[in-house]
Amino acid sequence: MDYGLYIVTDEILAPGCSHIQIARESLAGGANIIQLRDKRRGGAELYIIAKEIRSLCNEYSAGFIVNDRLDIALLTGADGVHLGQDDIPVSAVRTLAPRPFIIGISVGSVEEAILAEKGGADYLGVGPVYPTETKKDAGPAVGPSLIRKIREKTKIPIVAIGGINLSNTRDVIDAGADGIAVISAVICSPDIKIASRKFVQLLSGKPSVV
Amino acid sequence: MDYGLYIVTDEILAPGCSHIQIARESLAGGANIIQLRDKRRGGAELYIIAKEIRSLCNEYSAGFIVNDRLDIALLTGADGVHLGQDDIPVSAVRTLAPRPFIIGISVGSVEEAILAEKGGADYLGVGPVYPTETKKDAGPAVGPSLIRKIREKTKIPIVAIGGINLSNTRDVIDAGADGIAVISAVICSPDIKIASRKFVQLLSGKPSVV
Ligand code: NI
Repeated sequence: MDYGLYIVTDEILAPGCSHIQIARESLAGGANIIQLRDKRRGGAELYIIAKEIRSLCNEYSAGFIVNDRLDIALLTGADGVHLGQDDIPVSAVRTLAPRPFIIGISVGSVEEAILAEKGGADYLGVGPVYPTETKKDAGPAVGPSLIRKIREKTKIPIVAIGGINLSNTRDVIDAGADGIAVISAVICSPDIKIASRKFVQLLSGKPSVV
Repeated sequence: MDYGLYIVTDEILAPGCSHIQIARESLAGGANIIQLRDKRRGGAELYIIAKEIRSLCNEYSAGFIVNDRLDIALLTGADGVHLGQDDIPVSAVRTLAPRPFIIGISVGSVEEAILAEKGGADYLGVGPVYPTETKKDAGPAVGPSLIRKIREKTKIPIVAIGGINLSNTRDVIDAGADGIAVISAVICSPDIKIASRKFVQLLSGKPSVV
């Protein structure tokens, strides 16, 4: 799995823009993974949305991850699930969903990272790296230094999340992140596709055309 | 599965009373099935609570059903899941959870009941039979007459829900229900165990000791 540009869909942050629209445009711009995140909708709606994003990701050979709802992930053929510290424990999830199903875990400290890896996680979402208005319950910003510390203590891929933008992406990658999770810097842009493409160019080391 | 007295745990309705306490006391009073219903908690907490109620139900040879969260149900060895009309579709759930895993569906009309049975449901939650303050989004009361109509058109067990108390239980059973789902009449009682026992006695046809 190439973590590169990892987009978290969030309709609340992108008024008038649906999960499917965010997914379609960011995939067209080169996103590697789409994570469907929705804490409000019931299972019936989520199931339909997830199936549609699954198809879109197939078209672009991109990965598809569902936040929190393992059931929706398994039912729609997602590549994996992303869990928070307050979600079902990774070791339990692993019994129900063997590899190659992917389990990602949000961590905010070296200790959480080590535990997640031991529990069977496939990648770590480390953050919030920078201060962010996106997820108000996410705790204080940890900075790229935490990525560096976690990189020393664990082996699984790291996806940096929280306040990542075109200006700080380089610092985060230099600190050891394998990919960047982007929410507002892409989905709050007037053109999601162009915003995604700029990140992809930056990650690939090509000079930006901006 | 004996549907008899089917208790839906709801901490919000029973202030100071936990899911586990409601389960333990109603099982001691003879409840046949416990449904864990919690729309607020994260997966980590739900997982721990569900595992505990699973053990309690085993002690009493009672059934254990989880509302909405198929993942929690599968991870904790629950007997089944209960789905609303806005939850993941039963036919999809069935592919992931073959029988004897139980799928129950809330229905409020003959059409929904027929569809649920066709989709692979194992029992129907029919209601709200009587007006109730418990679930404000549940729609208008359907009365015992809907149970009668659904009984004529479907074969799977019917659990009546919504405003069921000691006075109307007989009408509901006479209309064709195989069991009664009780929330407030039991869990808002000062003694959950005694309240459960009264329903069990009523359902078994024994004279109540009230
Ligand atoms: Ni639901």
